[in-house]
Amino acid sequence: MDRYAQRGVSSQKEDVHRAIRNTDKGLFPGAFCKIVEDVYSAEQDPWCSVMHADGAGTKSSLAYAYWKETSDLSVWDGIAQDAIVMNTDDLLCVGITDDIYISSTIGRNKNLVPAQVIERLIAGSQRFVSKMAEYGVRLIPTGGETADVGDLVRTVIADTTVYAKIRRSQVIDNSRIKSGDVIVGLASDGQARYEDFYNGGMGSNGLTSARHDVFAKYLGVRYPETYDPSMPESLVYSGSKKLTDIEPQTGMTYGKLVLSPTRTYAPVAKRVLDRMRSSIHGMIHCSGGGQTKVLHFAPGLRIVKDNLFDVPVLFRTIQAQSQTPWREMFKVFNMGHRMEFYVSESYAQDIIDIAEALGVGARVVGRVEKLSGSLPQLTIRCPMGEFDY
Amino acid sequence: MDRYAQRGVSSQKEDVHRAIRNTDKGLFPGAFCKIVEDVYSAEQDPWCSVMHADGAGTKSSLAYAYWKETSDLSVWDGIAQDAIVMNTDDLLCVGITDDIYISSTIGRNKNLVPAQVIERLIAGSQRFVSKMAEYGVRLIPTGGETADVGDLVRTVIADTTVYAKIRRSQVIDNSRIKSGDVIVGLASDGQARYEDFYNGGMGSNGLTSARHDVFAKYLGVRYPETYDPSMPESLVYSGSKKLTDIEPQTGMTYGKLVLSPTRTYAPVAKRVLDRMRSSIHGMIHCSGGGQTKVLHFAPGLRIVKDNLFDVPVLFRTIQAQSQTPWREMFKVFNMGHRMEFYVSESYAQDIIDIAEALGVGARVVGRVEKLSGSLPQLTIRCPMGEFDY
Repeated sequence: MDRYAQRGVSSQKEDVHRAIRNTDKGLFPGAFCKIVEDVYSAEQDPWCSVMHADGAGTKSSLAYAYWKETSDLSVWDGIAQDAIVMNTDDLLCVGITDDIYISSTIGRNKNLVPAQVIERLIAGSQRFVSKMAEYGVRLIPTGGETADVGDLVRTVIADTTVYAKIRRSQVIDNSRIKSGDVIVGLASDGQARYEDFYNGGMGSNGLTSARHDVFAKYLGVRYPETYDPSMPESLVYSGSKKLTDIEPQTGMTYGKLVLSPTRTYAPVAKRVLDRMRSSIHGMIHCSGGGQTKVLHFAPGLRIVKDNLFDVPVLFRTIQAQSQTPWREMFKVFNMGHRMEFYVSESYAQDIIDIAEALGVGARVVGRVEKLSGSLPQLTIRCPMGEFDY
Repeated sequence: MDRYAQRGVSSQKEDVHRAIRNTDKGLFPGAFCKIVEDVYSAEQDPWCSVMHADGAGTKSSLAYAYWKETSDLSVWDGIAQDAIVMNTDDLLCVGITDDIYISSTIGRNKNLVPAQVIERLIAGSQRFVSKMAEYGVRLIPTGGETADVGDLVRTVIADTTVYAKIRRSQVIDNSRIKSGDVIVGLASDGQARYEDFYNGGMGSNGLTSARHDVFAKYLGVRYPETYDPSMPESLVYSGSKKLTDIEPQTGMTYGKLVLSPTRTYAPVAKRVLDRMRSSIHGMIHCSGGGQTKVLHFAPGLRIVKDNLFDVPVLFRTIQAQSQTPWREMFKVFNMGHRMEFYVSESYAQDIIDIAEALGVGARVVGRVEKLSGSLPQLTIRCPMGEFDY
C-alpha cells in the first residue's frame, strides 16, 4: 500500500468513482460539472442548472495548527476562499463565470474552535465576495450552517456548495476538444492583481500529503487533534520544516506557503469567455488528479504537455521533503498551472494577454494530438523526465 | 458548565448566532430561512431564491456504531434521509414544497468507512427522492462531493445543501403570526403512509446528548472513534442501553429507535399549501431548539402550548436515562411534534384531516396570545409541569 493509501487518501478517489458509477451523468455527460435541467424555466427558455459541492479539505487542519502556533487568525480567510474557489473554478469549466449562489457548511469541534474562528471564516468569505465583485464576478452569499459536531470532527471542516444557471447554448462541455488544439495554462503561483500576497500555488487537493510530507514531528506532538491517530507513526508529519521556518526564495513561512489560498481564475475566465466563448473547446480545472485531470475528458485523444511552467518552489519543496517520484507529483499537485483552456492556436495569445493583464502568468503548455483507440493518453515532458499516463 | 456544554454542543448555538449577527438577513428577515433575490429573473418576474444547508449531525456517529455492531447497512439510508429532510423541512416553512435541488457533501475517514457505505448513502438518497416523487414532491439530485478527510473526520459526516426558487408573493415569512392563531402540530412519531417502519420521532438535533445519555459504556470501548476523546469520561456513553436491546413498547432495538430517520412533512405541507397557502400565517420546524424554536419568530407574542402530544417513548427513554429536567428536554428535542402551522382556528381541522389522511398524527397543540413588550414568551403546560421560556 502506498503512502497515500496508508494516509487514508487517494489522488484519484477510485472507490468513490466506483460508488457513483451508476448515477445519472446529467445533460452534458462530458462536462466538467454535472449539469441538470432548470425545472423553473419554461420550455422555450432553455436554461440548465448546476449545483456543485467541494471544500477546503484537510487544509483546515493545517490552518488550525498555524493559528494555534501563531495566533494569526488570517489563515481562516484563506480557508474560506479555498472552500469557495474549489467550487467556482469548477463552474468556470462549464462556462459559468458569474451570478453564482454560495452556501457554506462548517462542522467544528466547539471545544477547540471558538466563535472567533467562525467569525473569521464568515468575514473571509465576505471579503472574497467583495473582491470578486470588484472584478465583475458576482457571487451571492446565502448563509449556511455551522454545526457543533465534536464527536465527528477533530477540529473544523469547511465546505461550500454553489448553484448557478446557464443557457444550454452557452455550456462548455469539453466535447469540442480536438486534435490540433493547443492548451493554454494559467499559472497557479505568483501574485495576481486581485491577490494581496504572493501565492505559492496550492489548491485544496493533496493537502494530507503536503502537510505530513513537509512538516516535522513536533507538530503532531503539539497538536494531535490535527491528524488521524490510526495513521502509521512513520507517516505522521514526516518532513523537516517548522510552520514558521522561512522559505528563502519567497521569504514566506513554510506554513503560509502551503496555506496559500486556492487562487481563483474567475476574473480571467470571465474576460476570456466574454470575448471568445464560442471558441473555447474545453476547460479543465487541475484539482484532484493534478495534471492528469484531463484524462477524464479527452476520449480518443493524446494530450502532450511539453512546455510546462517551471515547477514552483512550493511543489519542489514537497517533492524534496517526500522524495515522491515526479511522475506521482504530477498526479497529485497542479505543479504550476491549475486551469487549462483548450483552443485553436490562433486564440492562444489573446487568452495569454488577458491573463497577464490581470497578473496571472499564462503560456501554451501543450497540445492535443490524434490517437488510435478510445482511451485518452497523456504525456508530460519536462526537465525531470518524460511521463506517460 | 452543563452537560451539553461539556459535550461541546449547545441546543441554542448562542456563539454561532453571535458570530453571524452582522450578516445580511435577506429579503424577508423574519422568515424561517434566509431568502435572497433571484439574480436570473427579470424585474417583472418577482421570484426569489433560497439556498440552505444542514446535515445529519452526529447521528452518523451512531449509525456507524450500529453498522459496525450489526453489519446492517440500512442505517445509512436513514442518514441520507436525515441530511436531506433537515433542509427540505426548513424550506417548507417559507412555503417551498417542491422543485428542490439537492447536493450532498460527505466527508469520511477512508480507513474506517469503505465505499459500500458511500454507495448506500447515495442509494438511500435516491430511494428517498423516488418516494417523495410518488407523493408529488419533486427533489432534483445534482450530485455532490465525497472527500477523504480522515485527518478531520473521525468516521463520516453527511451534509446536504438545497436550492429552490419561489415567487415573492408565495413566501411564508411568519410575519402574519398573530394573537388568536392556533398552532397545529404534526406528530414526529408513528408511521406515515410514506414511511416503511415505525418512526421514533427523532430529528437530527440533540443526537450528541441522546447517544451518550441512552447508550452504555461498552460502546465507547468498542468504538472510540465515535466520540471526542477530550469529552469528560463520565459523560461518554453514560446510559444503560445496548444498541441491540429491545424497547418493549415498539419492539425495536434502542439503536434503531434513536436512529429513526428524520420524518419529512413535505407530502403534508404540499397538500396543505396547495389548498390554503394564503391562510397560513407561519410555519415552524422544531429542529434545533426543539419546542422553543418559535421564540425566534414571534416578536411581541405569547405562545401557549398546552395540548401537546403524549411524549413518545423515545424521548421518555432519553429523559429517564439522563435525568434531564423536562424543562430542558423541550429545549433540545421535539418531544412529539416537529412541524407547526400557525393559522386561524377555522383552518385547523382541514390541516389535521390532510395530515391524518397521510398517516401523520395532527392536533391543535396550542395558541397565540397578546403580550405587552417586544420579547416573545413561550409557556408549555403538560403533565410534567408548566415551563416558561
